[in-house]
Amino acid sequence: MYRTNTCGDLRITDINSEITLSGWVHKIRKMGGMTFIDLRDRYGITQLSFNQAINPDICEKANKLGRECVIQITGVVTERSNKNTHIPTGDIEINVTALNILNSSKTPPFTIENETDGGDDIRMKYRYLDLRRDVVRQNLELRHKMTIATRQYLDERQFLEVETPVLIGSTPEGARDFIVPSRMNKGEFYALPQSPQLFKQLLMVAGFDRYFQIVKCFRDEDLRADRQPEFTQIDCEMSFVEQEDVLSTFEGLTKYIFKNIKGIDLPDFPRISYADAMKFYGSDKPDTRFDMKFVEIKDLTEGHNFGVFDSAEYVGAICVKNCATYTRKQLDELTDFVKRPQIGAKGLVYVRYNEDGTIKSSVDKFYNEEDLKLWLDRSNANPGDLLLVLSGETEKTQKQLGELRLEMGSRLGLRDKFNYKCLWVIDFPLLEWSEEDERYVAKHHPFTSPKPEDIPLLDSNPGAVRANAYDIVINGVEVGGGSIRIHDSELQKKMFSVLGFSDEQAQKQFGFLMNAFQYGAPPHGGIAFGLDRFVSLLAGLDSIRDCIAFPKNNSGRDVMIDAPSIVDQKQLDELKIALVQE
Amino acid sequence: MYRTNTCGDLRITDINSEITLSGWVHKIRKMGGMTFIDLRDRYGITQLSFNQAINPDICEKANKLGRECVIQITGVVTERSNKNTHIPTGDIEINVTALNILNSSKTPPFTIENETDGGDDIRMKYRYLDLRRDVVRQNLELRHKMTIATRQYLDERQFLEVETPVLIGSTPEGARDFIVPSRMNKGEFYALPQSPQLFKQLLMVAGFDRYFQIVKCFRDEDLRADRQPEFTQIDCEMSFVEQEDVLSTFEGLTKYIFKNIKGIDLPDFPRISYADAMKFYGSDKPDTRFDMKFVEIKDLTEGHNFGVFDSAEYVGAICVKNCATYTRKQLDELTDFVKRPQIGAKGLVYVRYNEDGTIKSSVDKFYNEEDLKLWLDRSNANPGDLLLVLSGETEKTQKQLGELRLEMGSRLGLRDKFNYKCLWVIDFPLLEWSEEDERYVAKHHPFTSPKPEDIPLLDSNPGAVRANAYDIVINGVEVGGGSIRIHDSELQKKMFSVLGFSDEQAQKQFGFLMNAFQYGAPPHGGIAFGLDRFVSLLAGLDSIRDCIAFPKNNSGRDVMIDAPSIVDQKQLDELKIALVQE
Repeated sequence: MYRTNTCGDLRITDINSEITLSGWVHKIRKMGGMTFIDLRDRYGITQLSFNQAINPDICEKANKLGRECVIQITGVVTERSNKNTHIPTGDIEINVTALNILNSSKTPPFTIENETDGGDDIRMKYRYLDLRRDVVRQNLELRHKMTIATRQYLDERQFLEVETPVLIGSTPEGARDFIVPSRMNKGEFYALPQSPQLFKQLLMVAGFDRYFQIVKCFRDEDLRADRQPEFTQIDCEMSFVEQEDVLSTFEGLTKYIFKNIKGIDLPDFPRISYADAMKFYGSDKPDTRFDMKFVEIKDLTEGHNFGVFDSAEYVGAICVKNCATYTRKQLDELTDFVKRPQIGAKGLVYVRYNEDGTIKSSVDKFYNEEDLKLWLDRSNANPGDLLLVLSGETEKTQKQLGELRLEMGSRLGLRDKFNYKCLWVIDFPLLEWSEEDERYVAKHHPFTSPKPEDIPLLDSNPGAVRANAYDIVINGVEVGGGSIRIHDSELQKKMFSVLGFSDEQAQKQFGFLMNAFQYGAPPHGGIAFGLDRFVSLLAGLDSIRDCIAFPKNNSGRDVMIDAPSIVDQKQLDELKIALVQE
Repeated sequence: MYRTNTCGDLRITDINSEITLSGWVHKIRKMGGMTFIDLRDRYGITQLSFNQAINPDICEKANKLGRECVIQITGVVTERSNKNTHIPTGDIEINVTALNILNSSKTPPFTIENETDGGDDIRMKYRYLDLRRDVVRQNLELRHKMTIATRQYLDERQFLEVETPVLIGSTPEGARDFIVPSRMNKGEFYALPQSPQLFKQLLMVAGFDRYFQIVKCFRDEDLRADRQPEFTQIDCEMSFVEQEDVLSTFEGLTKYIFKNIKGIDLPDFPRISYADAMKFYGSDKPDTRFDMKFVEIKDLTEGHNFGVFDSAEYVGAICVKNCATYTRKQLDELTDFVKRPQIGAKGLVYVRYNEDGTIKSSVDKFYNEEDLKLWLDRSNANPGDLLLVLSGETEKTQKQLGELRLEMGSRLGLRDKFNYKCLWVIDFPLLEWSEEDERYVAKHHPFTSPKPEDIPLLDSNPGAVRANAYDIVINGVEVGGGSIRIHDSELQKKMFSVLGFSDEQAQKQFGFLMNAFQYGAPPHGGIAFGLDRFVSLLAGLDSIRDCIAFPKNNSGRDVMIDAPSIVDQKQLDELKIALVQE
């Protein structure tokens, strides 16, 4: 037996017990005739003591150990004279009577500490050492706990976890698929699923009633910090439900997870329409940890010969509390911020509402204090506040103002990672116009149900049709989204035609789903949560990478195992494929 | 709201409640002025009644419904005069006051009943209808319960579920990989994992201590009834363990699952060495639901000028209880059975130990009653028993006798699907000789640890080296298997050299693992269960297909969605690959 206890187990109540521990040498300290080793495993750190006078052979052996060696020791639990209150085992130490070296270790390329000297590249190459660091492992422990809690909640509510296939067919709609050549069906390819969407809908047709799956999905898209080629979804679907049923079930799940994992009781989630989210936050995933809602002042700006505002479709302001004292330099920084190409505003107008009640703006040439006071009043500004104003084409300006709002939130420290604000964004548009394809594409996906009252608009004004679609947003991050689905094959056909699919194309790509709908499809709807994002939010991480055990880099490479890689010609020959030289 | 209750909910205690149900029309019966509909959902069946005299409009509408239509009804729970004791809702029926047709249905291509008229092909094409059948859905419910129970057990014991990547590198050792062309790394390919073996070992190096994952794995091999290109494993690994720790943990898991899912208390699992399994059962996965162990009688057969036995390396018998009365025809059938090419025996010798004590055999020319009595005595045969004897080269003959033993078990009804007999097979050989490759290959995999006492044999007699490897066998099915791993990089190098890998090949394929082992790898070991097989065993299925929601056929095709399929040339161009014409 390698151990009687773990390195996190022992307490003052264990004094005088003879125990055996195994673990890694975390630190060695020599003091006078004593050697102290911090022995580490997943469960904690226990101090070992070796006395040169009493047991010179073992002490000698201990002195030769390097960091990260794997050892097994036997000894007696004793009370520490110099207690460490920072760790649960800090009251005791082990007087070691036997030491067995299980494995040696080369010097790690970076220190195995929460604050490490290893850069991203070296940490990823030696990910198995990086994962030894508490801060990284704790993210994965949290991920484990989250999936356990999720399954508990859903299992208690009659959801069945059903595995759907990974080797499926390719569908051109949506993002780019990874494809897999089939050896047994020459010239044909499987695709890896971007989501189990079709299968979960088929499970509803099959009468499974409530389905979920925590499942890997795949997208061959260019990568960013919060995107990986393989990612994990909590994928769910329910039958005989309306939007309200789905929202309440999964608001419940979210509350359950927060309570279970973080001990936080979340209040009921506010709901906001997509239209209002754009109007007040310039974003379909508003960060509601702070207020600073948009105020529209176009009407108040007219008739003053200020060309910029007069020619603008939209003039919107945010009121920044207690920032009237912002210096010229600070305001220039903000102007530079909104003028960055990623934001794309032409300029920034400010109004300082000074503590003494005077008003000073960058457009004093066009507006006097009385004019500006109207803007301030509509913005509920108080003396000491700062108004920031952007103008231009409505949608673009709202997005720019949204970015400025987030920037101000960050600058003012209003975006505490551990202050969680959840909400539902509802009533999304069903369709959006694609400039590239010169047609409408599905905002969510082609199976999303329009709101029944908006169906007549499908012919007359498709862009105005609202969907029974919803997103769950936490702290400005879209954590999940879903919709009530179309369960009527005629409406589904109509939808494909609005999306510009010929009957033949629709039949070829989704024929099996439309056929399935002819055999008694129940009303159904669902949601999918992005597990990686959800975990990183709970863990307070900036990137999803550190809640994934073995992530890929921005080129889609696993630098630890050096994948992807070239394969034997024999493998390609068997698959009847060849590489094309550029 | 689509329903207040499910079709499995209502009882006699609900009488007079007004309720709303939604579900599928399972059956319609007209009797006099009444129409009865069995309304079905996942939770059960509830009888609806429509009275022509009281509510002619609704009754008329009900009469027009076809099977599998989806309807919503409101009505009042009433006591049935003619109770159905076969279903939990059989005491009540619903007097329907409102009927809403949610969706129509074409006539299904086969009946949605436990005993269906649909053949395999049509059931797979319309799998979403097949899954409506209770018997199929129940398998998937059982699968769900099994994974929930598995996670409970492992979570309670500090195992962390960690997701390992699906897009990994290809390794030529083992079965054929599915490969995935990388768009971002032209000319390179990912491979889909045959198991997370390397990653779980790296997690042990990372100090994760206890890992599990219920995970899809992939093998591009030709398919049989119990093989699918994608399959699911319960994959587990532990650090600081010896074989005994792994066996007791996962014997515990197996018992927990049986108790939890089937209410069965399993006794402790017997253990048998690989050598004894071959000696007594001719199989490394013995079916121990019945005894009928092999008896070796070579020594008793010598000196009687029977060339067949004299030239044989091995003569073995099984004693079949109470079958001395087998007719000539029955014995001929058994002879034909063992002579089938799949079995490959040259012939079958029998000895009838008649009830009257007389002995009659097919080799009376060479052996008298006294000679034969020695065989019978060694076999513990009683009057009335039948001895069946095969001879030839030891290993081949043991396998043939093993097949005959299973055949006799089946003929005698000794292989009850729901009588579960579990055991561990241990002490597997580390290596086996591959005639094809003319070298030793790993019996389990190249990371399996030899028994320490057998390490010296690696040079002198590699075939005799035993491994710290084990299989869990239930009713003749290998449900799981694993091993203690090599954690020493020198021993791992040695192993690769015995397997005929050059240092360069080993470094290229497994370099990252051997490097990882240099940074303090703990002793570790693990196991993987085949979830599909485990579920099919618990469900009493002959094939794993019916415990998989969307299985593939023997050509690796999903006939429902018609995958794999050809892809757009654009997709191939982006990946810089081309099809090779034959």
